[in-house]
Order: sequence, then C-alpha cells, then structure tokens
Amino acid sequence: MAYKDASLTIEERVADLLPRMSIDEKVAQMRIFHANIGIEANDKGKLQLSERVIEKLKIGIAGIKNPGEHLSPLAAAKLNNELQEYIIKNNRWGIPALFVTESYNGVDAEGCTRFGRPITSAASFNPELVNRIWDVVGREARLRGMHMCHSPEADIVRDPRFGRMSEAFGEDTYLTTQMVVNAIKGVQGNYEGLGKGTHIGAVAKHFAGYGQVLGGSNFAAVEISQRTLIDEIYPPFEAAIKDAKTLGIMASHGDLNGIASHGNPELLTGVLRDQWNFDGYVVSDSNDIARLYYFMKVAETPEAAALMGLVAGIDIDLYAEDSYAYLPEMVKKDPSIEKMIDRSVKRVLRTKMILGLFENPYVDIKKVKNGVRSEQALNLALEADLESIILLKNDGNTLPLQKESLKKIALLGPLVNEGTQKAFESVLNDGMSVTALQGFKLTDENNSVPKLVTTDAAVLDNMVQTAADADVAILFLGGDEFTAKEAYFNNALGDRATIEPLGAQDELVRKVKALGKPLIVVLQHRRTLSINTIAEKADAILDGWDLSEFGDTAVAKIVFGDVSPSGKLPVTVPRSIGQLPFHYSMKEINKKKGYLFLEDGPLYPFGHGLSYGDFEYSDVQLSKNSLTPTSEIQVNATVTNNGKMTAKEVVQLYIKDEIGSVTRPDKELKGFEKIELAPGESKSVTFRITPEMLEFTGLAMEKVLEAGDYTVTVGTSSAVGVTAKFRLEK
Amino acid sequence: MAYKDASLTIEERVADLLPRMSIDEKVAQMRIFHANIGIEANDKGKLQLSERVIEKLKIGIAGIKNPGEHLSPLAAAKLNNELQEYIIKNNRWGIPALFVTESYNGVDAEGCTRFGRPITSAASFNPELVNRIWDVVGREARLRGMHMCHSPEADIVRDPRFGRMSEAFGEDTYLTTQMVVNAIKGVQGNYEGLGKGTHIGAVAKHFAGYGQVLGGSNFAAVEISQRTLIDEIYPPFEAAIKDAKTLGIMASHGDLNGIASHGNPELLTGVLRDQWNFDGYVVSDSNDIARLYYFMKVAETPEAAALMGLVAGIDIDLYAEDSYAYLPEMVKKDPSIEKMIDRSVKRVLRTKMILGLFENPYVDIKKVKNGVRSEQALNLALEADLESIILLKNDGNTLPLQKESLKKIALLGPLVNEGTQKAFESVLNDGMSVTALQGFKLTDENNSVPKLVTTDAAVLDNMVQTAADADVAILFLGGDEFTAKEAYFNNALGDRATIEPLGAQDELVRKVKALGKPLIVVLQHRRTLSINTIAEKADAILDGWDLSEFGDTAVAKIVFGDVSPSGKLPVTVPRSIGQLPFHYSMKEINKKKGYLFLEDGPLYPFGHGLSYGDFEYSDVQLSKNSLTPTSEIQVNATVTNNGKMTAKEVVQLYIKDEIGSVTRPDKELKGFEKIELAPGESKSVTFRITPEMLEFTGLAMEKVLEAGDYTVTVGTSSAVGVTAKFRLEK
Repeated sequence: MAYKDASLTIEERVADLLPRMSIDEKVAQMRIFHANIGIEANDKGKLQLSERVIEKLKIGIAGIKNPGEHLSPLAAAKLNNELQEYIIKNNRWGIPALFVTESYNGVDAEGCTRFGRPITSAASFNPELVNRIWDVVGREARLRGMHMCHSPEADIVRDPRFGRMSEAFGEDTYLTTQMVVNAIKGVQGNYEGLGKGTHIGAVAKHFAGYGQVLGGSNFAAVEISQRTLIDEIYPPFEAAIKDAKTLGIMASHGDLNGIASHGNPELLTGVLRDQWNFDGYVVSDSNDIARLYYFMKVAETPEAAALMGLVAGIDIDLYAEDSYAYLPEMVKKDPSIEKMIDRSVKRVLRTKMILGLFENPYVDIKKVKNGVRSEQALNLALEADLESIILLKNDGNTLPLQKESLKKIALLGPLVNEGTQKAFESVLNDGMSVTALQGFKLTDENNSVPKLVTTDAAVLDNMVQTAADADVAILFLGGDEFTAKEAYFNNALGDRATIEPLGAQDELVRKVKALGKPLIVVLQHRRTLSINTIAEKADAILDGWDLSEFGDTAVAKIVFGDVSPSGKLPVTVPRSIGQLPFHYSMKEINKKKGYLFLEDGPLYPFGHGLSYGDFEYSDVQLSKNSLTPTSEIQVNATVTNNGKMTAKEVVQLYIKDEIGSVTRPDKELKGFEKIELAPGESKSVTFRITPEMLEFTGLAMEKVLEAGDYTVTVGTSSAVGVTAKFRLEK
Repeated sequence: MAYKDASLTIEERVADLLPRMSIDEKVAQMRIFHANIGIEANDKGKLQLSERVIEKLKIGIAGIKNPGEHLSPLAAAKLNNELQEYIIKNNRWGIPALFVTESYNGVDAEGCTRFGRPITSAASFNPELVNRIWDVVGREARLRGMHMCHSPEADIVRDPRFGRMSEAFGEDTYLTTQMVVNAIKGVQGNYEGLGKGTHIGAVAKHFAGYGQVLGGSNFAAVEISQRTLIDEIYPPFEAAIKDAKTLGIMASHGDLNGIASHGNPELLTGVLRDQWNFDGYVVSDSNDIARLYYFMKVAETPEAAALMGLVAGIDIDLYAEDSYAYLPEMVKKDPSIEKMIDRSVKRVLRTKMILGLFENPYVDIKKVKNGVRSEQALNLALEADLESIILLKNDGNTLPLQKESLKKIALLGPLVNEGTQKAFESVLNDGMSVTALQGFKLTDENNSVPKLVTTDAAVLDNMVQTAADADVAILFLGGDEFTAKEAYFNNALGDRATIEPLGAQDELVRKVKALGKPLIVVLQHRRTLSINTIAEKADAILDGWDLSEFGDTAVAKIVFGDVSPSGKLPVTVPRSIGQLPFHYSMKEINKKKGYLFLEDGPLYPFGHGLSYGDFEYSDVQLSKNSLTPTSEIQVNATVTNNGKMTAKEVVQLYIKDEIGSVTRPDKELKGFEKIELAPGESKSVTFRITPEMLEFTGLAMEKVLEAGDYTVTVGTSSAVGVTAKFRLEK
C-alpha cells in the first residue's frame, strides 16, 4: 500500500491513505483522549487497557494525552511501545497514534529534568539557553515515547492577576518571540529531529489573546483592538510558524472581541492558513469545542459546536466526548462537511508522517536510561537558573556575601524547603553554619480551594530570634504553588485580585529589618508581586521566579558570588495593582498622568536587573543618521565593566517612533545581546536597525513604514540607557 | 441682506451669508476662546476688553467660553448683553457669538442652583427628574446670557479609578442613554426652548470611548472592540442626536484603538454624519486639535494637526491658539481645504440661527432675578437628592431613626461640613440635640497636588468620645473634592490607583462600632469606593454620592424617615480594585471564575438600593412565550409593599440572551419604572419587550436579531428578581 512507502512524498502517501478510510476512521484521527480513561501498567509493567479504550482504538486515534506520565522514563517508554504496537495492530490501516505531553518546566511527566518555568528562562534574556533547555525537553519526551508537546505558550502575559503568567515568557512581544522560536526549534530538534526520532513536535498556544483575559481571570472575555492584536499578540505565533516551523497550534480558551476563538474562522483559517500558510494541525484546548455550546454559549447544540469548530479550522478535538464524536452522524445528514473533515485528517496524517511514525513508531529502549536526566541536562538546569536569577536591589553591595566575615546564616520564610539548607551548606567554608526555618506556610493545602493561613506571633518571634542569632538573614519569600496556578473547573482557583505578598511575609520583613543586620530577600513566585515593603526594607533582593530543581543551589552560588546574577525582568513590576494595565511598551500617552497619592512609574522597570559587575554604557553611535526603506543602520555602544568581578550583562536595544499616524508605544525592545565582561573590560555591542523593525499597523490596517524621527536607546533596562536619534526618509 | 431675514429658511440665510465672508472671518467662526484672556467687568459692572480680545473680535468669533462666570446671574446677563452688542457691532456682518458654559451640577457659574452631580441623579433612576433638573440648567444659563452648554457627558464610566466618573451617569448603557436624552431635552427646552430664547444648546461628550481610558487614567489610550463600542458606548450618543436633537457633540481627548479621536474621520464624519445624520457642530475638547501634534504625536506639525482635525470633521477649535489659527494661511497654500472650512462654518452659523441669535441676541434683564434660583429650582434640588440617596444596608431596620427614642446624636467625620449640624437640627424634635465634629480632613489643600493627611490618635479619641456621649453616631465618610477630580495638565492629579476609603476613616468606623451603639454611615464621594470595612461594621449605610447644596437636609430627612430612600446604584461596587473591569452587564463568561482568597461577586450589585418599604416581587407573566421580529411581548410583574411606610421603588427589567453568535452579556438593563406604593399596596408594572431591544452587533458587524431563548428578570436590582423565559422565533 502506497501510504506505507516512505520513498513517496508525504502528500502522495496521505493522498493514498485518506480515500481508504471510513468516516469513522477519519473522525478518529481528529480526536485525542486522555490516558486516564484506561491506559495503565499492571504491576509487571505490562499494558492494561480499559474496555472503553479498547473500543476506541479499533478505528484508530489521532493521539493520546500523557500515557505513562506517572511512570519512570524507561517504564513509560516500554508501556508506550506496547501501546503503540497495540494501536497499530488494532486499526485497519495500521495508523500509529501521537502521544502527547506538555512542558512548563521540562517534560510534564515523572523522572524528567525539572527546569525553571518559561517566565524564569525569559529572565535569562538568553535565547540560545532556552533553545538548549527545550532541546532536552524534546529528547527526554521522545525517549519516553512522546511525539508532540502541547507547548510552548506564545501568549503575551501582562496581567499579574492571571494564574498562568509563569507559563509564558513575559510581557514583551519581541522577547517572547525570540524565546518561543528558540523553544520550538529546541524541542523539534531544528525540525530535523522530528523525522530522526530524537525530538517531538511543538504546539504553540493559545491562539490568540489568551494572555489578555479581562481581569486576568481564566475563561474571561478578551477585548483588544485589531491593531494591538496584530502588532503585539500575533508575532510570536507568526514566528512560531514561519521561523520555527511548529507542527501545531492550539486555539485559545477565550473569546476574542466577542467571537469564541474555537469558532473563529478568520483567526484559525484566515490568519493561520491563508496569511501565514500554516500547514500543521490546530488542536482545541481541553474540551473547548464542546464548550462553545455549554460554556461560551455561542452554539445552540453540541452538534452545532462541533460544526463551528470544524468550520473554524480545528483539526483535533482534545478530550471532548460530546463534540467531534458527533461528526460521523452529522456527515450522514450533510455529506458536504466531509471535505472539511478530510482537510483536517490530512493534516494529522501528515504530522504523523513528518514524525516518521509509520516507519519508526517505537522508542529504542536502550537509549532511555542515559538519555534522560543526563549529567549535561542537569547541569543545564542549574546553568539556566544562574542566568535567570535577577538582582533587583543591592544597597551598599550587600551581595555577594563575603564568606570570611560570616559565621552564622539564617534562612527563613515560607519558601524555604527541605533542600535549601543542604544547598547552602554545599557552598560554605569550614566554620560557617546555616539554620533553615520555614516558620510558616502561606496556604493550607488541605482544602480543595486553598485558604490563607494566619501566623502566630510566637512563630514570627521564633523566626526573628533565629535571625537575631545569625550574622545575616536571608528570607525566602514570594508565593507557593497554590497562590498562582491555572484556574480549572470547577473549584480550582488560581487567579488573584491582589498582588501584594500574602500572609505574614511583610511583617517578617519589618521585624527582621529592625534587627539592624543585613537583610537579603530571595523571591520565588509564579506571578508578579508588588513587593513594596520588601523593596523598601531589604538590603538586597534576588528574584528567582520559579527555578529548576537546583534552584536553591543556584541561589546559594549567587549569594556567595560564585557567579554574578545576570537575569533581567521579563515584566514590569507595578507598585500597585491599581496601575494595571502597565507594561513598559504601552503608549506614551498612557504614561502622562500619574495617580493621586502614588509615586509615578513602576516599582521595577522591564529589563531591570543589577549585577556584581558595574556596567557603564557609553559612545552610542549610529552608522548614519538617516534610514531609507531599503537600507539599514548599525548602532554601536560601548559597555565597560568597571567592577571587580566578571559578569554577564544583557545589553538592550529600544526604539521609539516619535510621531506616527497612530498613537505609538513609549518604546519597544528591538534587540538584546548578553555579553560577558571581565573587570575593566570593554566591549562594543552592535545592533542592526532594519526598516522591517519599524513597521506597524497603520490607519488602513496595513503594515506601514513611516518617515520621521526615531530615538534609539541602548541600555541596561527599559528605563536606563544612552540614546541617539535617526530619521527615516522615504 | 438675506441672511438677516428670519422669514427665510436657515439654509437660505446661511447660503447668503457664507459667500460674503472672508477666509479670516470664516475661520473665526471655527474658534472659541476663553473669557479669561480679557473679558471682565470693571467695578461699575461695565465691560472691559483686553487688546487681545478686541483684536480677535474684529472678525467675529464662533464663541466665548464662560464670560461672566464669576458674576452674579444679573451682572453676568448685563455684561454678556454688552459683550454681545460689542461683538455684533464690531464684525463686518454682525454675527453674534455663542456664549458657552458647562454643567456638572447646575450651570458652572456663580449664583446658579447647585444640583447633585450626574452620577447622583443617575441613582434616582428617574429620567423625568433629570429632565426637570436640566430644564432649570438651561433656563438659568440662558438668563445669564449663555447659549451653549458643553454638557452632558454621555460616556459610560466603569472604572472607579477615573477621576471624572461622577460627571457621567454610571456604568450602564441603557440607563445612561435615558438620562442623557432627558438631560438634553431638558437643557434645550425640548428643542423649542432654543429659538424661544429660554434654553440653551447641549453638547454631548466625549465622542467616543472617553470613559474607557486604560487604567482609568485621564489622557490614556483606549482599547475596545468595535462590537463593544457600537453596542455599549455609542447608544447614548446616537440617542442624543436622534432622539434629543443635541446641537453639538464634543470629541474625546483620547485615542480609540490607536487613532486619535480628534483626528478620526470614521468616527466624527463616518459615524456622526453619514450614519446618524448629525447636522450640529462638533467641537474639540480643550486644546485637543493642537494636542494631536504635541501630545498624541500623530501629527508632524501644528499645521498638520489643524488639517487632521478639519478633515476628521471638527468644526470648532476650543481654545488652541496654535491650531485652527493656521487655517487662513493654509488655505493660501491649498485652496481645496476651503470647502471643508465652509462645511464647518455653515454648521456654526446654523447653530446661531437655531438659537435665534441674529434676531434676539440679548437677555431680557428683567427676567433674571426671578428666573434664577427660583423657589421651584431650589425645591427641585432637594427633591432630586431625596430620590437619589441610596440605602445600601439597613440591618435590623436601624433606619429610619425614631426621634422618640433619641436625645443626643453625633455627626462625625471628614465629610461633615458647616451646614450639616444646622440641617439636622432643622428636622429634630424638641429635647433632641446634635453634635457635629469633622475631626479630621482627608487631604491637605495647601498643595497644588493634594497630600493625604495623617490623623492623630487624640483626634480619633475625641471623635469616639463624642460618639460615646451620644445615642447614635452618624459618620460622614467618603471622599473630598480633591480625591476624585479631573486630572488636568500639568500637576493636577485626580485619578487614583486605589479605591479604599482614605486616611483614618476605616479606623474611625472600627472604633465607633466597638462602642456597641447604632452606627450609621453616610457616604459622599465622586468615585466608587470599595467600602469593605464600612459594609461589615455599619448597621446602616446611606450613599449620597455628590448631592446638591441641600444634601445635608436631604440626608437628615431620610435618616429620620420623612422620606424613604429610593435611589439605586448606577454602578457595580467591587470588593477590590483587583476585580476590575467589573460591571454587571459584562459577559457571562467573565463571571465564571472567581479569585483566590476573595469572595465572589460585587460588594453591592448594580441597581441595588433598599427602602423603608418592604417590596415583594411576584406574578411575573409574559403576554406570550414567543416573539417574532414583528411582534412584541408585554411583561407584567406585581410589586407589593409589605412594609409600614409609603415608599418609591425602581422596578428593573433585565434581559439575558441565553445563546448568541457572539459571546453575550450576563444580562442587560432594558427598562425600569419608578413607582410609589403605600403600605399594603400592590401595583402591576408592565414593560414592553420589542425585537429592537434584543438586537446586537453580530459576527458580520451588523445588527442582528437572533432566534433563541431569552430570560427576563423583573427585580429590585441586577441581582435580585423574578424571572420568566421566552423564545424568539424567526
């Protein structure tokens, strides 16, 4: 049968296979179910299937979510090989299935390398590092039998109330685009890893505007202008398709200006297919096609919801039993919809062929042990943390701590965990000691909806006494896993209406500060926090967001100066939730008026991050003062490390369009480069400014390049740098 | 000269006058200047003009803002008669000028009746009352020589951070539309008052989306979907034009999805003129045409800004010396723009003729004294307050206070003013006494930017002692005039990032509550406040927003039960600023997920307001269960007053479209009626449901009427009512 002949083109093979398939078999290729409905290993590690799964697999299946997720990589690989074999043998055409996982911080399954979350790696401002992280994700996932990763998130996250902000790469379109492209290239092994069987396919999500849910409330509506959507929300997705060749795109839960994204043909077909020529598959988010009926209430019946998803261009229905399951019956009533089904099935079959699954459906078991959690991968997790930790404040060079002058160190606070003490001990000199005391937790985990806990005065007193007995206090503060998470159905909440540190944290800071000793705060959290009290009281603040499994070691190394911190904020930190929406690239007119009784500006600006080095920016020069639509300008700036320690610095390029036909951003990140400088060393950093970088969606809703004045800033954050000007002549 | 012949049509007269005018004279008819550049009364009340004004008036002028604003009505009328005479005599064609004022709470000038602000009268849910208020505004303004009122605000205000929210009629489109139409009909004397010389022309503002500034920050950008704009923001403006025949529209300061409203032809010509056939004038907001250049930065030069305003369709440049002032020179370079100038000048001249100014340019001085601050007007101000005060909470029927059981009453708090004690004393029985003690202020007025004040413990102790010495404590809390106002240039701030009560107010509440005596809170404020502590501690809460000059009297009358409160909240009161955006009519999907650690829902819902009556809703019935595009349904509900006091109640009709082609509001106010019921009395209230009420902007961006299920609620607020269902069949 021609479709099994790997010497033919994929198009030829798909064209051969599709006409052989019944309508039931076709629709089966448009559905993914979750392994939790009956795919398990028995106590000998052998595959056990429920009746429900057996029944389903008789006609094949597009894919299965998370088979073997709770098994070790090796056990998962064995199970998935068995499962794949079963699937191939039990459907008429021997079509293999896609095994699907996700990645927030490494493969979302047991026994894989645990990295920091995307918002953390975004803080590294190091796309090459992100590429290597996701390369590990891709390899480890494929070795456990996975083929697709319903990640990364290409959403722009600007609302810290949103429980999922740590799953994306921050507030900035350019930074997110760089990170998303590198994540996808990494996880797909530069696309070449797909067919070689070393990597897995990516699914960029959630298209489009998911980060813009009103009130930061999951499942809420989205209100955004078409211009902002095109200029600020689309680019990471467009680059995921055009530059990184993502195999998949996932639609957004939400609506977009009143139109449910899962039922939006303009978005899922018009933009993705017609404008961007995307030829991979579009998958629904969990149950979201069915939800067009029972949740979004834009379809009168479940069948109408299925048709709406199909017409919009969703190829695969993730999970819902009451949506694409209706398609075979619907075709009987209206045969014309089969051509839309064929269109989707082709995309799914094509994906499986790109992944080489017809020829090589199985994992080479002997590669698993050495391929997962390799020393290289574990080192990379630590390396990424070291590049991602942000030094927010460092009054009087409190950090790095000098081991010679310290005997006792107190590690205190709700984010202290079992490994913290050990991690610090591993970097200490003889004669030094560490006391770690969590003291209090932030939330009570015994509730399905977590509750805040109150802290007894005695507990705080004990913590303060511990600090008093030490030479320096390091407080581990921020948020735990329950204070920022995805707000699922039904009772699971994860969004918050406040962004101040919870519980007794500020009180602890004030009391420890009153001791008069150096106070260092280490932040770990999954949403931006308005840390006003900490910012005022702490002598030094390290911001780790959500680090890898080696996070405490990375913190200890940075605290004692083994490495200089070099992370930069991938978001703006507001002083108050009342300043929202608040991102550095918002329009200049948004920044004109402050609020009564509140200091202007952010608590910390986007791109901010101090160093143990001491960087001076000078000599910003343009190769010429005017640009034409067919030329480009080089910007040079000299960065000198006047400090005493070798350190990395993220040199950032911002451009401001002084006057435009539409109101323009205050400035926009258009380039960055992470460099390392020895003490006394200078480097000249060069950026190219091309006309394409200056384009935006003009009055007529088409991309325009406008003559006029532009200001270039090369700097250490979005707020501090050296500037030059040029003019665009047309 | 034909244009002076009142027997001709206005079109004929304008057609005669326009060709006679020089380009300088034409452009002068497109400019308004402020009287503060040199129009004064000397110590004998005679007109004195600066050289600058004399020079300007040689070629006529469209209008002058606020001449005589600081004079008594009679002195202003005399001055304005002199001024008008001077203008007519000193321009070649004897064209009179428009004298322009505003009204937030009565004519914005000395000596006129001071009403509550629009947000206050919105709480009355009584459009007829609003009509009578604005009738007084129109009459009093015309009597002091005014011709136009750059009011009312037709903006939808949903963000309590915005300093101007009290200038508009609240969060709801339907309520605002009713109020705006009645305000305009009132101020224009049903249009007939314009030519009769008894009323003045209205200018509905700010078109469009001004209430939607991001972050509630004045001058900020606006991001809104076209669908929301059409369905929720446009209707008050469309009704102002089509139903109320407003003479003018003012453009919005802001941008709208990237396009500056003052440079937006689609908005100011496409929507206003082409779609709605508006034939009055469009006036800029203060300096906003020039600001297209120096602030919005969408014009490369001041001249380009002027051209942009002209092309967009702005007829009159308010104030700016560096905008339309350039037009005569610009016409020399490009004669083609004169036809746009002619278009605008025609609109201005037509407005002057509608107002009868060529025939009757002067005030009849002998009518002024009895016509301004008439007894009827002053009574109306009190009546409006009595209908607008909202009873938010009344545990255990704390209110009304029974005079028989009370001897000493303490009036305490920062909103106590000079008149409060006297007002209360005027309603007391013999043997009762009142002590009023402001105690502390909220802000320090000595700064150009107001600062918060801290309150000494001794001051609070004294207040608590005063409460302890009384039988009941009434706390006057909220916000002063500095904590919510328009944020002008340069240093004036008026928007806030927090909405909790400021200063020591919550502490005062807690301390007085601890006394164990009845605690009543009277709120006065110009923005929505999250009064969580007050809501928890107070036994009863009266919410007055911003009342008339008789506000304290109205409060005293309601406190003692002379009248039952009947106001209803024209906004949603959130528990936290972190819940924004939060209005009752937001989409159902926005209400699905709550926030961690915060109770769901609003603190008080839109439409909420208790009564001294006790209203029961029953017997909701529809005249039929299905509606067609050409029929209508009657909804009947019975409301019974089970209480012991005659009281008014606002019966509210909400409709919910259960399923739509686009995501739909949770519910929408579609009707209301204020009724009065004696104890034991029942009334049947009838609403019509017409197909037009169910229309919205569908997928194709055209108005649609969709078949399907609808739920009707007739109730006492947006959260409490009795329901019925019908189906629309097409």
